[in-house]
Amino acid sequence: MNDVDRAARAATGAFATFGRLNGRRKGEMLRSIAARLEANGDAIVQCARSETALGLPRLQGELARTCNQLRMFAALVEEGSWVGARIDHGNVDVRSMLRPLGPVAVFGASNFPLAFSVAGGDTASALAAGCPVIVKAHPAHPRTSALAGEAIAAVVPEGVFALLFDDGYETGMALVKHPLIKAVGFTGSLRGGRALMDIAASRPEPIPVFAEMGSINPVFILPRALRERGAEIAAGLHASVTLGVGQFCTNPGLVLTTRDENFVRELETRIAATPAATMLTPAIRDAYRAGVDSFTSMARRRAFVDAEGGAALFTIDADSFLAHRELRDEVFGPSTLVVECDSPAGLIDVARALEGQLTVTIHAAEGEIDEHRDLLEIVETKAGRIVFNGYPTGVEVVPAMVHGGPYPATSDGRSTSVGTRAIERFTRPVAWQNAPETVLPDELKESNPLGIRRMVDGRI
Amino acid sequence: MNDVDRAARAATGAFATFGRLNGRRKGEMLRSIAARLEANGDAIVQCARSETALGLPRLQGELARTCNQLRMFAALVEEGSWVGARIDHGNVDVRSMLRPLGPVAVFGASNFPLAFSVAGGDTASALAAGCPVIVKAHPAHPRTSALAGEAIAAVVPEGVFALLFDDGYETGMALVKHPLIKAVGFTGSLRGGRALMDIAASRPEPIPVFAEMGSINPVFILPRALRERGAEIAAGLHASVTLGVGQFCTNPGLVLTTRDENFVRELETRIAATPAATMLTPAIRDAYRAGVDSFTSMARRRAFVDAEGGAALFTIDADSFLAHRELRDEVFGPSTLVVECDSPAGLIDVARALEGQLTVTIHAAEGEIDEHRDLLEIVETKAGRIVFNGYPTGVEVVPAMVHGGPYPATSDGRSTSVGTRAIERFTRPVAWQNAPETVLPDELKESNPLGIRRMVDGRI
Repeated sequence: MNDVDRAARAATGAFATFGRLNGRRKGEMLRSIAARLEANGDAIVQCARSETALGLPRLQGELARTCNQLRMFAALVEEGSWVGARIDHGNVDVRSMLRPLGPVAVFGASNFPLAFSVAGGDTASALAAGCPVIVKAHPAHPRTSALAGEAIAAVVPEGVFALLFDDGYETGMALVKHPLIKAVGFTGSLRGGRALMDIAASRPEPIPVFAEMGSINPVFILPRALRERGAEIAAGLHASVTLGVGQFCTNPGLVLTTRDENFVRELETRIAATPAATMLTPAIRDAYRAGVDSFTSMARRRAFVDAEGGAALFTIDADSFLAHRELRDEVFGPSTLVVECDSPAGLIDVARALEGQLTVTIHAAEGEIDEHRDLLEIVETKAGRIVFNGYPTGVEVVPAMVHGGPYPATSDGRSTSVGTRAIERFTRPVAWQNAPETVLPDELKESNPLGIRRMVDGRI
Repeated sequence: MNDVDRAARAATGAFATFGRLNGRRKGEMLRSIAARLEANGDAIVQCARSETALGLPRLQGELARTCNQLRMFAALVEEGSWVGARIDHGNVDVRSMLRPLGPVAVFGASNFPLAFSVAGGDTASALAAGCPVIVKAHPAHPRTSALAGEAIAAVVPEGVFALLFDDGYETGMALVKHPLIKAVGFTGSLRGGRALMDIAASRPEPIPVFAEMGSINPVFILPRALRERGAEIAAGLHASVTLGVGQFCTNPGLVLTTRDENFVRELETRIAATPAATMLTPAIRDAYRAGVDSFTSMARRRAFVDAEGGAALFTIDADSFLAHRELRDEVFGPSTLVVECDSPAGLIDVARALEGQLTVTIHAAEGEIDEHRDLLEIVETKAGRIVFNGYPTGVEVVPAMVHGGPYPATSDGRSTSVGTRAIERFTRPVAWQNAPETVLPDELKESNPLGIRRMVDGRI
């Protein structure tokens, strides 16, 4: 693993300078990466299209999202207050702020060749924090990865960025094991993420792994909402389940309703009419087919387009759902399972049994949610994001966004991989005690030369 | 492990309500715990004295510190802005804030029977966050633990607090393994902390462990400072090394200087004249003695008070220090090792070789630090707190404090166990998307009924 070692050493060497770069310079770099991606946008999108079978509008949108993310973090570090500077004058003078961790390993995702890959959110937030980044490209889109990597490499100082390729697992494992790597960002499967977590935890020096893994994104439909707009919800749900051939971590794989045959029939008709579509990779296609076959053995298959990427709909009663633990596993693709409960109490039983989720969605009629506070309290402990009267797919790039959730949705429910809080994953607080002014970072100097927001003697 | 299961179930039951309690109520409880500890202060301090052999002034100070911590977190949650509320209006309305994780297991420390034990910083910050707490009392001070536990149990709702006792490891291990426990706070040895980290990482649902473990708290003395005030530094260092029989995690166990026989002789005289003292437990006494014996086989023993808790001073040259990996291990007690370097470059070599530390201290004469920026850059990557012209013992209870540091000083260098940031350990961000106003927590309601500081559309 010569490449891994070389990249890790170069990153550590570069960190001494890059980790202390001011926000203005880091902001310039992030904006410059975005500009280069846009300048080469047509080639990048065409290349991604040929490698992933994703459509042009989707990929154009994803490129825009990627650049938005880079610019959001640029604005964050240019403004500068994100470091959370604190100053306590007193018997002893104590000042503290967030500082970057050091070199970060990032794993590109199969399903987002741009926004969660080489120049994606993990890379943007790690660079913004001041951490060099070594990306392990996803083998599903090596040429797209190389193009994105060129945009970064052209902008950042030597050693701050490296891109590694490997069809197997060796390079990734060596990266996570390398003593100079200080944190890991990953988007992918539960199996893959857990493997990296286990490697990181068993290092002589354990390091944090921020893995966004799987989720079945339950959608609860309360009885009155179901009666009042069941057909409309079926249409919205169908669009969300089949968006991008269902290859989103926020894909709604589980629907919880009271019994309503009209709703199921409407969804069934729409699912059955969904055109088949090429999936991202043969491995994903095969895993999806295996998931559909497995569900077929446990639940009632109501619709299935029997072709690559064909949509599927299953139904089951609440007791049978709770009896089959495997039905809570993610089937990555355009499939969803409707659990038909006999009463609202059944919804609660199922909610309690859920594992950690990226999202939970609730459809409720006007005022109806107030009659189901118990459900709300349960789902709040299960998810990173609670969506009302909408659909979980589509993760807005805004500061408040949380794209995280309790295990197994992510490795660490205390983090988010979207929104400006994502930068905090790659930092730690450092305090200076009775330090001479010349030694302090600008963020902590008495005169506040950067004009950032600080907590001084406990007050902002 | 019936007690563990019972406590974990009760905590989970109580969490549904306690986790949603407003800051005013939580603040009242924390203040009420402090008031009860003070009201029973004489009995608590006398009890701790008989169990720990720590002196009365030290224990009175520790009780005051414990109450200060409780009140600091009370003030934090009463003010309320700590949740980091964010609101983004836009195509979709996204609002997020920190929410408590759930039941937390806290392990009492041997060396702080009050401030880092039952009602200590981990408990205070977890309760402030809204997490029920189950404390495993340290077997070195069970009666003191019980008294502190009574003060908490009298105040918080049923199930929110439990205190468990065990002379061995079974109860603690069962706690960390219990599926309803969502995080762990620990202060103690590297061996103990790492064992809990490994258990937590291998759970079906891994949970975060915040373990403050060991540190040798290196003190660098730059040449001019050594010349100008070597005797004064020797006196200060001696006081810091022997404070509380050296039984502090911030004890300075390593001193790095250029060669100066006067300084070493001054320190030697003081160490040799230190009265012996009873240590916290027979196990700690025996481990200290074994550490001194081990160092004696590798370094030159310059002074040693041959009795329980007797102070010790060792010296060694830089090359020999770097050759003996075991000399970087913590010897818990009043012992320190001076590494005599031939030149300032030697200080850099040693600095580079250091593991993660809670603190690094630098003594520098006026302007001298500016000639050693390279040393400063290295120590910043090694420590949670950098002390200038002082001593590492004494951790101020102020919002800006960082009591943490890269592994093996702690399990997670991204956290601190002192200062108001400690509350963040026990929280995770949750987002509400397009939520009706009635469903939103007060912190996120459009009208801002709590009047807290929020980030709205990217601006505070």
